[in-house]
Amino acid sequence: MQNEGGKQHDQNACDIGFIGLGVMGSNLTMNLVDHGFRVACFDLDQPKVESILAKDASERGEGVAPRVEGCSSYTELLSKLKAPHLIIISVPAGDPVDHVCHHLIDAGIHADDIVVDTGNSLWTDSVAREAQYKGKFIFFSTAVSGGEVGARFGPSLMPSGNPYAWTRIEPVLKAISAKADAITGKPIESFTPGKPVLEGEPCATYIGPIGAGHYVKMVHNGIEYADMQLICETYHIMRDALDMSPADIAAVFRRWNEGKLNSYLIEISADVLEQRDPETQQPLVDVILDRAGQKGTGLWTAVSALEVGSPAQTITSAVFARSISSLKDERVAASKLLAGPASVSFDDDQKQAIIDKLEHALYCSKICAYAQGFQLMAMAGKEHGWNLEFGEIAKIWRAGCIIRAVFLQSISKAYENNEELDNLLLDPFFAEQITQYQSDWRESIAQATLAGVPCPSMMSALSYYDSYRTAVLPANLLQGQRDYFGAHTYQRVDKPAGKKYHLEWSDPNRPQTSIKR
Amino acid sequence: MQNEGGKQHDQNACDIGFIGLGVMGSNLTMNLVDHGFRVACFDLDQPKVESILAKDASERGEGVAPRVEGCSSYTELLSKLKAPHLIIISVPAGDPVDHVCHHLIDAGIHADDIVVDTGNSLWTDSVAREAQYKGKFIFFSTAVSGGEVGARFGPSLMPSGNPYAWTRIEPVLKAISAKADAITGKPIESFTPGKPVLEGEPCATYIGPIGAGHYVKMVHNGIEYADMQLICETYHIMRDALDMSPADIAAVFRRWNEGKLNSYLIEISADVLEQRDPETQQPLVDVILDRAGQKGTGLWTAVSALEVGSPAQTITSAVFARSISSLKDERVAASKLLAGPASVSFDDDQKQAIIDKLEHALYCSKICAYAQGFQLMAMAGKEHGWNLEFGEIAKIWRAGCIIRAVFLQSISKAYENNEELDNLLLDPFFAEQITQYQSDWRESIAQATLAGVPCPSMMSALSYYDSYRTAVLPANLLQGQRDYFGAHTYQRVDKPAGKKYHLEWSDPNRPQTSIKR
Repeated sequence: MQNEGGKQHDQNACDIGFIGLGVMGSNLTMNLVDHGFRVACFDLDQPKVESILAKDASERGEGVAPRVEGCSSYTELLSKLKAPHLIIISVPAGDPVDHVCHHLIDAGIHADDIVVDTGNSLWTDSVAREAQYKGKFIFFSTAVSGGEVGARFGPSLMPSGNPYAWTRIEPVLKAISAKADAITGKPIESFTPGKPVLEGEPCATYIGPIGAGHYVKMVHNGIEYADMQLICETYHIMRDALDMSPADIAAVFRRWNEGKLNSYLIEISADVLEQRDPETQQPLVDVILDRAGQKGTGLWTAVSALEVGSPAQTITSAVFARSISSLKDERVAASKLLAGPASVSFDDDQKQAIIDKLEHALYCSKICAYAQGFQLMAMAGKEHGWNLEFGEIAKIWRAGCIIRAVFLQSISKAYENNEELDNLLLDPFFAEQITQYQSDWRESIAQATLAGVPCPSMMSALSYYDSYRTAVLPANLLQGQRDYFGAHTYQRVDKPAGKKYHLEWSDPNRPQTSIKR
Repeated sequence: MQNEGGKQHDQNACDIGFIGLGVMGSNLTMNLVDHGFRVACFDLDQPKVESILAKDASERGEGVAPRVEGCSSYTELLSKLKAPHLIIISVPAGDPVDHVCHHLIDAGIHADDIVVDTGNSLWTDSVAREAQYKGKFIFFSTAVSGGEVGARFGPSLMPSGNPYAWTRIEPVLKAISAKADAITGKPIESFTPGKPVLEGEPCATYIGPIGAGHYVKMVHNGIEYADMQLICETYHIMRDALDMSPADIAAVFRRWNEGKLNSYLIEISADVLEQRDPETQQPLVDVILDRAGQKGTGLWTAVSALEVGSPAQTITSAVFARSISSLKDERVAASKLLAGPASVSFDDDQKQAIIDKLEHALYCSKICAYAQGFQLMAMAGKEHGWNLEFGEIAKIWRAGCIIRAVFLQSISKAYENNEELDNLLLDPFFAEQITQYQSDWRESIAQATLAGVPCPSMMSALSYYDSYRTAVLPANLLQGQRDYFGAHTYQRVDKPAGKKYHLEWSDPNRPQTSIKR
């Protein structure tokens, strides 16, 4: 079957070419065929091609024609597609992406064909690739959140690139994405292969120019770090200051999951805490070594926040919490040498009161962590000239991804009510929520402080709130110090912005010193 | 005067060649001549050469021969030096450094000549330059701390590079450096030109292989960020929660400066708070706009800490405090919308009690900030194969630089007592100090939390302490979450380190779930 210039094609031609059939790739492929797309597949490792054909055979209904076609070369793959060709690739980030792109050029890909990278590419690499392959084909990228299960049954997708290409890609990505209920904001779940979710709002929206999607995904992961750490801190307070068992804490999380904290992360935290270790019959959490790993996206978010000058301090504190957790041997040694406060015990009523406050503390902290993430996207978006729509971004995070939660419905509404919102904290709903719960938040932190239980992320969230709502910060003293020792100059509150002043501090006769008491 | 191969030279030849006569360069030159070195000077801008000759003429005693010789070319500069040539350069970081190096090569510099870069070069650039100029001359670098005044009368110097070159450079840098009293640890100050300080311990020590010195200087600046922010937070609490005037707070700082907080930064904070604005007669601090600037070294320290995986969270929180300060317009708007707690007033006795606790809170927080800086140097030093001597580093920070303080004498002792100290917190003296003062520290933070005054760096310092001394952190739950949603695996407390485990969380029949209450 010849396919010249996209002018004519076989009615049986495939809709999509898929390259890279690892776990993510084969799951995305099966997700595509579930939604009625015919997919031509290729992998350098031919057994993976055989394997996806077998999977299709075993999953498709009886009497249904194969939905997947295997290919043994890039040329064959191109020959089997409708024109203009739409090719999705799922290969490791970095050189493999360019490897595939070069082979597609050699195989005769056209200038109006589209290649969609679904890997974990660095957003700046995607920017470079769009420029590099211009005129050969259209390089497009989409970040994919939700892991293996998401890829198979509905991920959250953050596509970015050429807006004309998006019109061609949109129906495909919206079809395979997770879906959220428009009214409740909850994920519509279907874990039955072959029975795709058709209703609800798709968790895929055009994010902006190339790179923007992967940046937004990076910030999603940064928020995820903060959200997980905040949950862990409430667990830690209940465990160490209230002397509760994992099962008791799981029950608290289950209850919280019915309220405003309802989220996938709270749900799985309860699952983890209820899990027994099959080997020792201990609660599994007590058997797991407390050294947290990281794959880098939280770190990248923190570095980007520092570089952009956006105070994402709760996200960053969660990254550092992982660093300090990894110093296990030092901590065990230090625990024997460094004193803490005397422990206090509580009766059941007192405990319950503390737990109820803790729910609000977690909720307020969570608002601040998300506010920081959205603020970072806003500042980075401004710097890079992206026109990010935060209401839409919040919507596509309601299902399919790790931080999915009804909470994101409220964030979406906040930005729908005011597209120009400077900070989530200024939205009337969130401002009211924090006003209502802040005393519980403050008391929880004060209590943990006095009890010696670390809660770095909760503290950083509160200090973010208190700093943000403070009209005059002590940075005036700091600017005075800087002008004193380094002649760095300062601006004045009573003069036009930008005008710089300096005092000759080393002059012993400088005017008006010493206003002694 | 010919100078071939370093074999013979004129008795009147100069000891040092100096290139780059900006403010730092001319001050370093005058510092050199004060200490008896004859200096040949060159700058592309010839009036600067004239200017330093005039300065020498006006400052040297009557009948004293010129101590500086002006040169109009690189060739002339080389011709006036004793061999092997020792050349110090003070030009802006980046291309200008290479520009000078290339001109020196063209002018006939020898392989055993030494070029010392004193600029604010990125440490990785110095590493590259040492390799690049190998065989042409020996590229050496020293970080200089203390600004213009330090350059003139005694900076803190952090030299690194070829150890054989160091033997030649050492007497020069030790002579011009700041000096600290060996017993008290206090700077020995002499602000009288022409009367150099001769006694005391020089604040210059060999740091390690090329680049190490600039890295250490970068961390010095990160610690400086934290130290300044912590002082600002105590000011903020006194100002807003205790309703004290700048002059009253200055008096508190003066008192603290007599005790364990004695330091340059506390001293100048009192000076700043006592300063009246000549124009409005208001306290100057109230006229200075509370938007803090930064030159990047704090940010670089934070980024390096994230990359190395060293939890320098207090340093990082100080960087973010500057970011949030710069959102002045947003903060002013937010201050009208976002509620804080009701304010509480205190009588004089209560105030005094709170102030006394605050002194200890600042002291404990400061210990943690410095512990983080030294921990970062240790982790980075390990990664780069530097053999950093922390006792010596603490010593050269006792005078000449911004964070100079008697406190550094205690740090130096801690590392002299135990070179292998993992963390400053584990030193018996510091451990005892925190034990003694931690309840004041905790109460101060709890009080600020309840009063709504942000103290991000103080909080991050406490959570660093509490995390570091916690044998079991909630990172076990976090690892459970990560294994649940991403199959990231976990290690077990009862199995050899490094062995990875995974539970099939999606298996509805997974063993031993649900240990319900």
